[in-house]
Amino acid sequence: MSYKVLDVNSVVEYLLSIKEVVEFFGTESLNAVEIGDGNLNYVYKISSEQEPEKALIAKQAVPYLRCVGEQFPLSRERMTYEIRALEKFYKIFPNFVPKVYHSSEAMSIVVMEYLDSHIIMREGLINRVKYTKFSEHISTYMSATLFYTSSIAMSSLNKRELIGKFNGNTELCKLTEDLVFSFPFMEHETNDNENVENNVNAKKLFEDYEFKERVLELKYKFMTQSDALLHGDLHTGSIMINENETYVIDPEFAFVGPFGFDVGALLANLVNNYIHHSVVTKDTEFMEWLLQTIKEILDKFCEKFLNYWSESKNSALCVAGFLNEKTLHDYKKRFVKKILKDSVGFAGCKMARRVYGVAGVAEIRGVKDVTLRGEAEALALLIAREFVMNYDKIDTSDEILEIIKNAG
Amino acid sequence: MSYKVLDVNSVVEYLLSIKEVVEFFGTESLNAVEIGDGNLNYVYKISSEQEPEKALIAKQAVPYLRCVGEQFPLSRERMTYEIRALEKFYKIFPNFVPKVYHSSEAMSIVVMEYLDSHIIMREGLINRVKYTKFSEHISTYMSATLFYTSSIAMSSLNKRELIGKFNGNTELCKLTEDLVFSFPFMEHETNDNENVENNVNAKKLFEDYEFKERVLELKYKFMTQSDALLHGDLHTGSIMINENETYVIDPEFAFVGPFGFDVGALLANLVNNYIHHSVVTKDTEFMEWLLQTIKEILDKFCEKFLNYWSESKNSALCVAGFLNEKTLHDYKKRFVKKILKDSVGFAGCKMARRVYGVAGVAEIRGVKDVTLRGEAEALALLIAREFVMNYDKIDTSDEILEIIKNAG
Repeated sequence: MSYKVLDVNSVVEYLLSIKEVVEFFGTESLNAVEIGDGNLNYVYKISSEQEPEKALIAKQAVPYLRCVGEQFPLSRERMTYEIRALEKFYKIFPNFVPKVYHSSEAMSIVVMEYLDSHIIMREGLINRVKYTKFSEHISTYMSATLFYTSSIAMSSLNKRELIGKFNGNTELCKLTEDLVFSFPFMEHETNDNENVENNVNAKKLFEDYEFKERVLELKYKFMTQSDALLHGDLHTGSIMINENETYVIDPEFAFVGPFGFDVGALLANLVNNYIHHSVVTKDTEFMEWLLQTIKEILDKFCEKFLNYWSESKNSALCVAGFLNEKTLHDYKKRFVKKILKDSVGFAGCKMARRVYGVAGVAEIRGVKDVTLRGEAEALALLIAREFVMNYDKIDTSDEILEIIKNAG
Repeated sequence: MSYKVLDVNSVVEYLLSIKEVVEFFGTESLNAVEIGDGNLNYVYKISSEQEPEKALIAKQAVPYLRCVGEQFPLSRERMTYEIRALEKFYKIFPNFVPKVYHSSEAMSIVVMEYLDSHIIMREGLINRVKYTKFSEHISTYMSATLFYTSSIAMSSLNKRELIGKFNGNTELCKLTEDLVFSFPFMEHETNDNENVENNVNAKKLFEDYEFKERVLELKYKFMTQSDALLHGDLHTGSIMINENETYVIDPEFAFVGPFGFDVGALLANLVNNYIHHSVVTKDTEFMEWLLQTIKEILDKFCEKFLNYWSESKNSALCVAGFLNEKTLHDYKKRFVKKILKDSVGFAGCKMARRVYGVAGVAEIRGVKDVTLRGEAEALALLIAREFVMNYDKIDTSDEILEIIKNAG
């Protein structure tokens, strides 16, 4: 089928031509409602007329930025990478990725499980919901997806094929290069310029060349380090959650990049939430839970990554018997420590870019009171700077918590 | 045309169907002689019957390792990457790359300039020929090819397209992973096992886990760092040279990998030649020239790399105006210093692998006298170990020379 943009009517017509979808519903009477509030794509909830609780999600990419319109072209091939990533991550750990019922790269569409009892994690965290199983879930998701798509687990051939499958996701990688690592730290039309004007902190940031030199170092890692298949945009808005379940969605930024980028994205978003509460709700108990959660995520991530590694005796990287037990152990320890360090560096970039860059987060930019917002921004910049300037000296999760607490 | 293996007769027939070739010779009376002594491919010298000094080289890859035969399959697609690399490198700096008259990925063949007044550099160096223009030439070649195929010079889109063009060169990358970074440091059937048996130095090397842990670190860089388009096998056997000209040939191992790998390969081969002379000819004057040449190559490489960079104000990595002059300067200095460090590490791996690995070099394995050969091997392992253990502490070319001289 050749590509066409679907609407609330034609999406039903399209889906009725898909065997797996008709089988799922067991009926041909379907309803579609547009539910997406995303910037990029059209998202429909499709449900059975007879049993409305039976539902699927259909998500279609259009060849422009949806929230702006056709005058901001953005190739719809981003959906190709989302489809491929969903498929790959689902194979590695189906528990944490929505089940896909149908996908078409030609139509830039994916039809998947409707997560009816889950909310966007960012909303939950703003409302101080403690997700007690989250650290366990997300540390498994991150360690498994990163480990099993790396050269430590894959053969050289399979790793190169994986790189090939995602190498074309240039446009979204370029978005990250620009909007995470460059424009938010200099005068630029894409910034939140209403806030930038006459703002001493913005001026200070834009002239903080020592900091920006380190950002460039991290940007270079992002551009050239082909460790593993990343989600590529793992913030708390890409996580659907409830008490018992965690789903990671929207991997359209997926590409083979540096390990630390996903871990760092999550870290940045949890710290931004911590900052929000330290300024707005001052709920010290929730803040303490957040810190504990950050520590658990990082420690468990390292532990599980090493566990997967110990189950995998032979790989493209490490031929069985090449090292003895002690040196292999030392090598692995250094290896995960380096992931931790890089994660802190990337987290710093990701936090700082949310302050004046084009895409703000609810926790900081959403703070209505101008004074409080300013406080939150200053705190975010302070922690971000510590992260970026010292990331390569970090050895433990405790040192990360110290930086966060000392800034508060 | 569908692929078929050519012989000394059919290669002429094939070439007569190529317009550029017929134009070059201006005649249809051509002679072909097989001249290749390579391990992998068939190489023919094609010349005009009327004017025998008018000649071209035709090189065809066969789907097996030529020196072993059809029982050792190796996909002929390696020629695809050689063709693409020759084309890319020629565009960057035509002076140092043979001119291609015809190529066909389907036929796995390339027809190029015949370098009649040049010899393989390794032979020249063994015979103590001082190539006084070499450091100037090769530093330009390396700095230009590496700089202009990196994310510092290219747009994100072009860089990713470049990665895509070479990403499929898996087989030869895997050969390097195995034969440079793994098998030569452990018991393995591919090694020079006649020499390994009952050899205390081999036993010591295979059990030097501290060294091998560092080799693994460098192997990981080789596998995952996508800095620039590499030649991939830049030893002195891949260089055709005379007093005035330098040509880099045989880029079939080309892929987008770490900057330091090409520079390191060359460094390793020059040091191996130094070791040869320090043990065999004891020609201190030539040895001094070699050291001076190494220093000049490394210093000029860094200088020229920085010069190209200063001409390139805006790139995927560094948006114009992102840093101020001082921090950009510091960043660039650190950047090339890191290339130097990595080069030393890769040089160490490349030197050590020549000692017991499958592919020896004439300078060491070719030494007939067993005692002298043992001395050369020990010296190579000593320098290689210093390189690998200390590569990340190296700051200047002088420190590299010190390591070489102190070992002697």
